[in-house]
Amino acid sequence: MQTANPLAVSPDNAVVWHRDRLYLLDQRTLPEHAVFLPFDSVAATAGAITDMVVRGAPAIGITAAYGVVLAARDAYARKGAGWRGALEQDLALLTAARPTAVNLSWAIERMQHALDALGGGDPVPDLLQEAQGIHAEDRAANHTLGEFGAALIRGPTDVITHCNAGALATGGYGTALGVIRSAYAAGRIGRVYVDETRPWLQGSRLTAWELAHSGIPVTVQTDGAAASLMAAGGIGWVIVGADRIAANGDLANKIGTYSLAVLARYHRVEFMVAAPTSTLDMRIERGADIPIEERDPDEILSYGDRQLAPPGVDARNPVFDVTPASLVDYIVTERGVVERPTPDKLRVLMDQDAAA
Amino acid sequence: MQTANPLAVSPDNAVVWHRDRLYLLDQRTLPEHAVFLPFDSVAATAGAITDMVVRGAPAIGITAAYGVVLAARDAYARKGAGWRGALEQDLALLTAARPTAVNLSWAIERMQHALDALGGGDPVPDLLQEAQGIHAEDRAANHTLGEFGAALIRGPTDVITHCNAGALATGGYGTALGVIRSAYAAGRIGRVYVDETRPWLQGSRLTAWELAHSGIPVTVQTDGAAASLMAAGGIGWVIVGADRIAANGDLANKIGTYSLAVLARYHRVEFMVAAPTSTLDMRIERGADIPIEERDPDEILSYGDRQLAPPGVDARNPVFDVTPASLVDYIVTERGVVERPTPDKLRVLMDQDAAA
Repeated sequence: MQTANPLAVSPDNAVVWHRDRLYLLDQRTLPEHAVFLPFDSVAATAGAITDMVVRGAPAIGITAAYGVVLAARDAYARKGAGWRGALEQDLALLTAARPTAVNLSWAIERMQHALDALGGGDPVPDLLQEAQGIHAEDRAANHTLGEFGAALIRGPTDVITHCNAGALATGGYGTALGVIRSAYAAGRIGRVYVDETRPWLQGSRLTAWELAHSGIPVTVQTDGAAASLMAAGGIGWVIVGADRIAANGDLANKIGTYSLAVLARYHRVEFMVAAPTSTLDMRIERGADIPIEERDPDEILSYGDRQLAPPGVDARNPVFDVTPASLVDYIVTERGVVERPTPDKLRVLMDQDAAA
Repeated sequence: MQTANPLAVSPDNAVVWHRDRLYLLDQRTLPEHAVFLPFDSVAATAGAITDMVVRGAPAIGITAAYGVVLAARDAYARKGAGWRGALEQDLALLTAARPTAVNLSWAIERMQHALDALGGGDPVPDLLQEAQGIHAEDRAANHTLGEFGAALIRGPTDVITHCNAGALATGGYGTALGVIRSAYAAGRIGRVYVDETRPWLQGSRLTAWELAHSGIPVTVQTDGAAASLMAAGGIGWVIVGADRIAANGDLANKIGTYSLAVLARYHRVEFMVAAPTSTLDMRIERGADIPIEERDPDEILSYGDRQLAPPGVDARNPVFDVTPASLVDYIVTERGVVERPTPDKLRVLMDQDAAA
């Protein structure tokens, strides 16, 4: 939802284009400090993606699209008619900013098509229109898939979500949280339990903030506490987003998602993945082929100024894990719902639009 | 292992009686700051258990035993011959310091037997002997069960542990880490992956420190990362401690243990619980009857000076969860190993000693 003030602090304003600048609501310090950082260059924008000023697969795709606008504007200002040659490196820089979410390269490819279709003169108006189109389509997709997902839930029930697949992670409204917002509005969800989601604590910091902002009852728990909550009963669904879904329905999402999927199956809790079709990567056959980002061990070994583990101790810090399609009950997209995903069902879903 | 200096900083010196005082190595600030805090009163000792200066089921049992010595010394000094009457309240205070680990009430009951057997005069020498006996027996039990557990492991393999069931959690050597120390010495373990264990981070702070101290290769991971590590292969065992084992083999241990047990079964990884028989509570029939401590939500919602979740957001903070016996492959005690625990097998184990 756009508010009257384009730079109003709201989960739905994670990525804002305003007066010829890109603004990102800094997700590293939320909710304690809500600060919009301005970006005027593609290099700084790529850095913001790498450093997680902005995160969430759709949101980094949208940010990259605006990054292409900034790159073209800068190149056109510096080089005039020869501006296209300067762009290749910038696009490569954006593409490499983070490896796992396919929405990043998906958005850059879409901007590449817009670049290819450009006539002469200033490229900015057409490119900006495309980036804003990507942004608006993502927000609309979330509202649509939110309704689709909510319709699956026979409530009222409590649910668990992990990390942040909300407005902050997208163009607005959210994927998993879009489903939760729609289902809550329809009276089908009682309370949302959110895993704090180490090491970045997107659950306790971002999802709790979003849900509180929407007036939805939320309780934070440690990642290790989800199992006993499921065993206690009362949890009907686990609802998460995705960073990349392979052609067979395997998916990469925030580390800990696979754990939840195993636990959900064990406790007969239904497992829903909510994502726009821009997250589907039909060029990758299965989850094992998805590149999994490994970040700095220090994200685990220290906290703020405090060193947690003693010097010399190492950590593994994979940021995502892969959940096999066999553990997924539903993939919910803006084009429709796929129950118990298979390569065939996902191909039909994706071909559907091409035919339309 | 006792070192020459009784107050040398070492994982094996978590609880030290030295020159008529109780010293606890403050586990809240380890490993960054290694500080022994002195205790002269039962009230302060009970507070140290509640505040987790000392933690780990056997270690808080040992601490409580020394707390009874302090209580009796104080009462005898204040009241002379009438000192026993003052003690009941102190024992109740110690017993209530934390609810889940049965070792606490087990140790206090043993001290009660010693109290009942006392003649006249100064109670301190006899009570101190009993407390030191509990302490020494626990350390010896860990060495014994460490060998029993290590013998089960056909290695070399990597293992996962959770929280801290090490020397710091016991009278020395450790339970789960005792098994790991013995198995590593025998060449059966390659590397130990330790879950950081939110919210207190006993894994990254304490277990990593202990294992590094022993020269055992250790890698820290978030609690949510254990599942994908198991899926990748190479993990042969999950080895954990316990805070209370019911008569049917269900057990309470640090939050997240049940999650690991489900994941281990799903990935065909063996699941071992290492604990002295003082952790077995034959008076409690099943896990559902074990009291589970719920601590301050603020342990999750804030970190140091930093508020993580926005004001008004709640958290659930159960500190333990219950793993059903059906997910346990082995319970390893100093009296022997129980494979696939049942009420009958555990009764035989416990009767064994009574007959000996």
